[in-house]
Amino acid sequence: MNFFMHRLGLTAPILQAPMAGSQDHRLAAAVSTAGGLGALPAAMLSAQQLEAQLHALQGATSRPFNVNFFCHDTPSPDASRLAQWHQLLAPYYLEMGLDPAQIPEGAGRVPYGSQAAEVLEAFKPAVVSFHFGLPQASWIERIKAWGGLVWSSATTVQEAVWLQDRGVDAIIAQGLEAGGHRGMFLSDDLTRQMGTFALLPQIVQAVRVPVIAAGGMADAASVRAAKTLGASAVQIGSAYLCSDEATTSALHRAALQSPQAQHTALTNLFSGRAARGIVNRLMREVGPLSSAAPAFPLATAAIAPLRAAAEAQQRSDFSPLWAGQNASGARALPAADITQAFIAAWRAG
Amino acid sequence: MNFFMHRLGLTAPILQAPMAGSQDHRLAAAVSTAGGLGALPAAMLSAQQLEAQLHALQGATSRPFNVNFFCHDTPSPDASRLAQWHQLLAPYYLEMGLDPAQIPEGAGRVPYGSQAAEVLEAFKPAVVSFHFGLPQASWIERIKAWGGLVWSSATTVQEAVWLQDRGVDAIIAQGLEAGGHRGMFLSDDLTRQMGTFALLPQIVQAVRVPVIAAGGMADAASVRAAKTLGASAVQIGSAYLCSDEATTSALHRAALQSPQAQHTALTNLFSGRAARGIVNRLMREVGPLSSAAPAFPLATAAIAPLRAAAEAQQRSDFSPLWAGQNASGARALPAADITQAFIAAWRAG
Repeated sequence: MNFFMHRLGLTAPILQAPMAGSQDHRLAAAVSTAGGLGALPAAMLSAQQLEAQLHALQGATSRPFNVNFFCHDTPSPDASRLAQWHQLLAPYYLEMGLDPAQIPEGAGRVPYGSQAAEVLEAFKPAVVSFHFGLPQASWIERIKAWGGLVWSSATTVQEAVWLQDRGVDAIIAQGLEAGGHRGMFLSDDLTRQMGTFALLPQIVQAVRVPVIAAGGMADAASVRAAKTLGASAVQIGSAYLCSDEATTSALHRAALQSPQAQHTALTNLFSGRAARGIVNRLMREVGPLSSAAPAFPLATAAIAPLRAAAEAQQRSDFSPLWAGQNASGARALPAADITQAFIAAWRAG
Repeated sequence: MNFFMHRLGLTAPILQAPMAGSQDHRLAAAVSTAGGLGALPAAMLSAQQLEAQLHALQGATSRPFNVNFFCHDTPSPDASRLAQWHQLLAPYYLEMGLDPAQIPEGAGRVPYGSQAAEVLEAFKPAVVSFHFGLPQASWIERIKAWGGLVWSSATTVQEAVWLQDRGVDAIIAQGLEAGGHRGMFLSDDLTRQMGTFALLPQIVQAVRVPVIAAGGMADAASVRAAKTLGASAVQIGSAYLCSDEATTSALHRAALQSPQAQHTALTNLFSGRAARGIVNRLMREVGPLSSAAPAFPLATAAIAPLRAAAEAQQRSDFSPLWAGQNASGARALPAADITQAFIAAWRAG
């Protein structure tokens, strides 16, 4: 029997990708209630916010769900790089009527730590997934102690083997097509990143734990193809971005449903790490990958005021428009309908 | 009925990718005889060589085959860029005991033109395929006049629609995983390149002509997955590179069957255009993509003496080790065995 259906009681192994900035507990609850596995992205939540979200989520569904964390090292700010970054953004500040002398600094995203672990322990979610590797072993043990499954993303075969060696219960094979942040953690060399079609079967071949396919999971055909390539589950992101329950902005929704979505790129401008989004003005003008961008997650703070000012004018010039390379599945429907279509595809495949 | 089986009498739509530098008529004949479609790469052949190869090929098999051409514009050499390129390579020339004052120049690859068209017309191959777009319309008409099918590669949905508008009979959807040269021709922006999992279904959705999946076609599962994503045929490259009939060098074969093959990258160092190969010393030291590399195909000439000198020492430091992102199918077997396994996979899928 399928590992995910057996362990989590899912109708089919259809997993909603956690998407920080585009969803809260509502999307997760809708997907879990429909028989898939909803996910709550916790990377941008304080401990208080996390607690409130988990409370709401557990109130809305009795089904299992996944809580997702980033587990990056917190970098020390590099003053000269930050100065270069601020210089690069200064003309945009002036254009938007903002003061370039007041560019904010700060983290924006907090890695998994003792505060989150404590909150989590009170709720004991069925699944805790990580991006950018894994937190320290003792925290993994704490999750396993309440019976929680621990997953993480691999973007290379080497990362998949590394994760298996550290005891993960399942591996998310994140193909290059996937939207949002690349989960890469053993190397920052982007040439090592592989398309789903090459990555998925090679990870399946290399590990014993179940493998979840991510990147390009847009419709029934892609679910069946991933299953054929050895996936035990599929993780779907972009196809949920325009769902009724997502908190995706109107500008982001419009971009996803326009020809603009045909051109995504990996960019480090919005956070400091490579993430896939629809190409917009900032990415075009600065170039999607800039050596001036501060280390993750320090790039975020300086962009925020530009983004807010432009969005107030209905412009997405400075907004991260996360999307995968196949956003054709992003439709304005209830998440339950989207989930049920994917469940039917898995069962038919 | 399947277009390729119907029009070409193939046992199954299993197409061997043309691989200049790693094969001649022997591989093409073996694949065609086994019930797939063999391909002869003509990009590096003079008219005389093309004629000799076609003569040998037609003598070796009565089955249809594909002859493949590049159709790039021939660039005017840029003296300052060439000087930069030579300066970058000079230390390697010295290390290999070569004279940096004698770095050769020249083209190396000739686009499809009247000479090739004339030779081709005498043999009337069933399929003529192109890379980097299409030649002028009159030449396409000449091929169609003898009943030949015209195919070309698309790396974006836009390129696929462009090719369909110009009358191609089938489109090769070349996913980012594919080894060798990217067929991109409407844009040189590498961020527009998509993984097979995203590219293939979106091209299938956008055009009416049959679509051939390329990039990551390593084994039975990948053939079935491509079929599921809407492919009417699959084109297989890397899996033939170690076949008995391929002319792949011993160094290249060894790299393909080693862990080194896990890390490929797009590089312009060997020709001037982005092509996927296994990362070797030159790619590591110079960086796989260099703005100093002359326009395609002018980068090739200066590398050739370095490559020859290093290969004489059993080193692949300067050799293009073309490979896709999943070379796990590259086994030392007769091409007929490889072809029959893929045929069986298609029929079972």
